Amino acid sequence: MAIEHPYLLFLGDAPDQLAAKTAQGIAHWRPDWCVGQLRLEGCKADLGLPDLSLEAAREAGAKTLVIGVANRGGVFSEAWISVLEKAMLLGFDIAAGLHNRLVDVPLLKAAAEQHGCQLFDVRHPTREFEVASGSKRPGKRLLAVGTDCSVGKMYTTLAVEKEMLDRGMKADFRATGQTGILIAGQGVSIDAVVADFISGAVEYLSPANDDDHWDIVEGQGSLFHASFAGVSMGLLHGAQPDALILCHEPTRQHMRGLPDFNLPTLQACMEANLAAARLTNPDVRFVGIAVNTSQMHESAVEAYLRRLEADFELPTVDPFVEGVKPLVDRLQDA
Amino acid sequence: MAIEHPYLLFLGDAPDQLAAKTAQGIAHWRPDWCVGQLRLEGCKADLGLPDLSLEAAREAGAKTLVIGVANRGGVFSEAWISVLEKAMLLGFDIAAGLHNRLVDVPLLKAAAEQHGCQLFDVRHPTREFEVASGSKRPGKRLLAVGTDCSVGKMYTTLAVEKEMLDRGMKADFRATGQTGILIAGQGVSIDAVVADFISGAVEYLSPANDDDHWDIVEGQGSLFHASFAGVSMGLLHGAQPDALILCHEPTRQHMRGLPDFNLPTLQACMEANLAAARLTNPDVRFVGIAVNTSQMHESAVEAYLRRLEADFELPTVDPFVEGVKPLVDRLQDA
Repeated sequence: MAIEHPYLLFLGDAPDQLAAKTAQGIAHWRPDWCVGQLRLEGCKADLGLPDLSLEAAREAGAKTLVIGVANRGGVFSEAWISVLEKAMLLGFDIAAGLHNRLVDVPLLKAAAEQHGCQLFDVRHPTREFEVASGSKRPGKRLLAVGTDCSVGKMYTTLAVEKEMLDRGMKADFRATGQTGILIAGQGVSIDAVVADFISGAVEYLSPANDDDHWDIVEGQGSLFHASFAGVSMGLLHGAQPDALILCHEPTRQHMRGLPDFNLPTLQACMEANLAAARLTNPDVRFVGIAVNTSQMHESAVEAYLRRLEADFELPTVDPFVEGVKPLVDRLQDA
Repeated sequence: MAIEHPYLLFLGDAPDQLAAKTAQGIAHWRPDWCVGQLRLEGCKADLGLPDLSLEAAREAGAKTLVIGVANRGGVFSEAWISVLEKAMLLGFDIAAGLHNRLVDVPLLKAAAEQHGCQLFDVRHPTREFEVASGSKRPGKRLLAVGTDCSVGKMYTTLAVEKEMLDRGMKADFRATGQTGILIAGQGVSIDAVVADFISGAVEYLSPANDDDHWDIVEGQGSLFHASFAGVSMGLLHGAQPDALILCHEPTRQHMRGLPDFNLPTLQACMEANLAAARLTNPDVRFVGIAVNTSQMHESAVEAYLRRLEADFELPTVDPFVEGVKPLVDRLQDA
């Protein structure tokens, strides 16, 4: 499964900018792939891309209409369906990362068959995977792990891929969640895989490669999240990472969605991840810490980052603010 | 989903006794539920139960025909299908723990609908689960964990349930694999659940209960198995165990199916399980070690068990040989 680009980003009737954050991520990380945006009446989001009709976008080369916005109440409205049908009539494939599937809408499925278009429901794996072999495979791998969910793992790994490519290194971002898959054009929504095949799916996602090639694997969840740690564990074993980056959000009051659970200390989180990761790669090590400082008092940020850097002897950055150069430096030094 | 008993155990054309090990487990642990066995021509397995025709089994009260044997090559033969169809005509439900599903065989699905019978494909969850809440729930829980897969976790937990019931304690075996589900009549095949819901499925499987009630949760895999550790981790967090039993097979040369992976030390395995389990139950502790000694030299067994007992200060038994009384004693003492 590879989603063809260029994309036309569909923002629908997004009630605000936040509702279009998937589209925003795609536009940010793959600007060259995005010919424009398509907004319906009442849309309150704007990516700063040209507003294009379906026809104009096709003329500009767009191959896939990417739904970059949540559908309200999980329903595909008539307005959406008529746009998507017309898009397929014009030859677009359609890609979405929603909970409910495009292929479950009879009108859309019929239109896709009629016009020979593909519907990509990237949150739902469509292939079967093997059980993980655990065998070490050539190529190098970096994985982002977190103290919690939603602390910046996707952003950090995309920033590392970009920095590596800017330096002429061989690198591929390997997406494990729906937004990442739309950004990469391919990947596996790892939390939707059948439990027995979590690690096997990651081995498929990040196959053998050149010795000097880096797969930059998007992390998911946290070993310390009582709902999702199994996913994080399987991902860690399947990725066989040579390098880990710890992602953290210092103002988080409790684990996401679990008011009774405190965040682990960074020390405990690193130790647990190293211990588990050594099973499939004894040489694993941390190469840096990525902190999402957006909720911190600005005056406290610098001291906090420098303190972590000293405590753990690891480069520590907010990737959104200053990028990830020190992390890639450390990785190249090793 | 609860499978109704009594059962008639279908052994098909089992080429040897081992092929019928699922049926053997059911007959061993639930003798009162098994009215007899049904064997086709050429069957080389024998459970020592009365050979009954479908009609005779119905007269004896049997409600479910349980397929207790693997189907050769994963195919449902014509001989099997005609027996299963006739069983449904007579009012049997049918239960199986095979990789391929009964409901995927059109003739069987049609017969089930026609006669109002249920088809239980216990390896394949049919319901959706919630994401785990992590919230502590009343009741006590014991979980078997292992140094590897297939080291006796199901046998151990069933033996603990039996010992507790014999003592008049409140206890329920909670099945997480297909054979266990057929033995318990219900359960969740945890490795077949979508990854995001592993822990949530265990919370569903082992709900709130009386303060003095024990759920004895069947373990799966190992935190040290590179293919399946994610399942074991999610199971550990969802079960919130108060008590753990470590299961081990001392002659295992490498992790099952993974020739390049050594087994962990018992010490390392206990520490990793305790560390992970504390996330959802800080009071978790080991109450014993269960060793499968069947492959050991008989002369070495006793010394080995006593050495573990001394090293770890935990009662250590082969449940198959001597039962699990010392483990339940320890648990009651605590």
